[in-house]
Amino acid sequence: MRNFNEFTITDAVLERVAGASDARTRQVSEALVRHLHAFVREIQPTQAEWEYGIDFLTRTGHMCDENRQEFILLSDTLGVSMQVDAINHRLPEGATETTVLGPFFVQRAPEHALGADISGQLQGIPLLVTGSVSSPEGQPLAGATVDVWHSDNDGYYDVQQLEKIGDLAMRARFRTDLNGRFWFWTIKPAAYPIPHDGPVGDMLEAQGRHPWRPAHVHFMIAAPGYEQLVTHVFEAGDQYLDSDVVFGVKDSLIRDYQEMPPGVAADGTTMDQPYRHLNYDFGLKSEARAIRAA
Amino acid sequence: MRNFNEFTITDAVLERVAGASDARTRQVSEALVRHLHAFVREIQPTQAEWEYGIDFLTRTGHMCDENRQEFILLSDTLGVSMQVDAINHRLPEGATETTVLGPFFVQRAPEHALGADISGQLQGIPLLVTGSVSSPEGQPLAGATVDVWHSDNDGYYDVQQLEKIGDLAMRARFRTDLNGRFWFWTIKPAAYPIPHDGPVGDMLEAQGRHPWRPAHVHFMIAAPGYEQLVTHVFEAGDQYLDSDVVFGVKDSLIRDYQEMPPGVAADGTTMDQPYRHLNYDFGLKSEARAIRAA
Repeated sequence: MRNFNEFTITDAVLERVAGASDARTRQVSEALVRHLHAFVREIQPTQAEWEYGIDFLTRTGHMCDENRQEFILLSDTLGVSMQVDAINHRLPEGATETTVLGPFFVQRAPEHALGADISGQLQGIPLLVTGSVSSPEGQPLAGATVDVWHSDNDGYYDVQQLEKIGDLAMRARFRTDLNGRFWFWTIKPAAYPIPHDGPVGDMLEAQGRHPWRPAHVHFMIAAPGYEQLVTHVFEAGDQYLDSDVVFGVKDSLIRDYQEMPPGVAADGTTMDQPYRHLNYDFGLKSEARAIRAA
Repeated sequence: MRNFNEFTITDAVLERVAGASDARTRQVSEALVRHLHAFVREIQPTQAEWEYGIDFLTRTGHMCDENRQEFILLSDTLGVSMQVDAINHRLPEGATETTVLGPFFVQRAPEHALGADISGQLQGIPLLVTGSVSSPEGQPLAGATVDVWHSDNDGYYDVQQLEKIGDLAMRARFRTDLNGRFWFWTIKPAAYPIPHDGPVGDMLEAQGRHPWRPAHVHFMIAAPGYEQLVTHVFEAGDQYLDSDVVFGVKDSLIRDYQEMPPGVAADGTTMDQPYRHLNYDFGLKSEARAIRAA
């Protein structure tokens, strides 16, 4: 095989990857080659544009470290993460809709008792978060793990300002009580731009797009026998609900972050200042009911 | 725009990137989104497969440094580099065919006088390289810059063994003489596997592919008023000519690396041992004759 031109090269590469011993590897490799070559054939890049593409990917890789995942941002902003999410979560009635994981989840979040304040003493509007976890049939799930993480009042996550704040904050793992309920105190998150000082920011600017996400709290919920749920709860009324840079908003995931006057809160805490209250009741999907096209 | 599913997400992203102020940015962005989403829709990745893809790209980026370009290897081994090369070099009669740049070109190669030995005292079979540079009409081009680089006897480039050999070698820039000719001494390059201790090596192994390239010398040739030529000259008879891992071989780029007995070589040097002689006469393409679809 030699003397390839811009048309014959595709079959040559397909013939080469057909030797993959694993059927899935072969399928993914063949699809990648076909779609990638079709893209290149369509746009007819100059050598300089190809070099720009190589450099863009290299810079994106170099931007990735323990606290930043620029390739996830790229996947998010090109709508790929939501597409993969949709493919993997065709949901039965009673199960909460899903959305992107995003780049700010970290494995090492501290476990806290129900009712804890996870704000890390950061300034902001106090927010009481309450909720429950159930099976699709409405059965409360006791002992489910509820991971939460969100931004501060200025839209920054803890991992973006560790030098300043010293430790993880606005991030915790809880376990639901015997009635499948959880609650905790924190500060209200704000809308924020995704990190846009890297290659993904360059791309958004070139595409004439803003980098903002509407305010939200992330949830990752797991219980034995159920599919892990990864989702957010967005704030009703946020100006970016219809232009989320990562295409993650679904109506069923929007809730009022209710304005509450000073007084006794739902968990019995006496508040001497106004605060917000967000409640969301989550439904998990049974593992056996996983629906996925072959 | 919200509540996207796996089908509606593509139009949503297309609508978003349509705001690009630069027409080419918009065209490339739209094509990227269409082909990337079609790929994802076809393979229906699990979340774990998507995470593998993110990690693969991240590892590929982290592998890139001053002396290694893993994304170029990825482009090369998926046939994209040869496709881009073909699109950009639809050649007139008299012009030398092109092939991939590869990941081992470096900007800082030393300039040498014609006839110099650029082997850096490395062990190997002596090789005399001679050639000429002409216009497509056969007019010799004096003062053309001829960059050359190649592997050693074991298939390694200088930049892969800088700690061992101490300095760049088997790499130089020459200028053609008044008759458009150039010549130099070096050692014969060997076939070699591309670096396969990284993500690209993992991919090749999974695809059941070997990582080898047939033996060759790289050339990059430039002269005012002509398009820069990037190509190789391969050794006739090499066992990998038909299975080059980067799909770079063209018949017109294969030459005998002729076995020569001891005696007076073509440049007048007296050799007391056998050596090889490679000659190639290059034709550049006039800048005005560049042929490229809009």
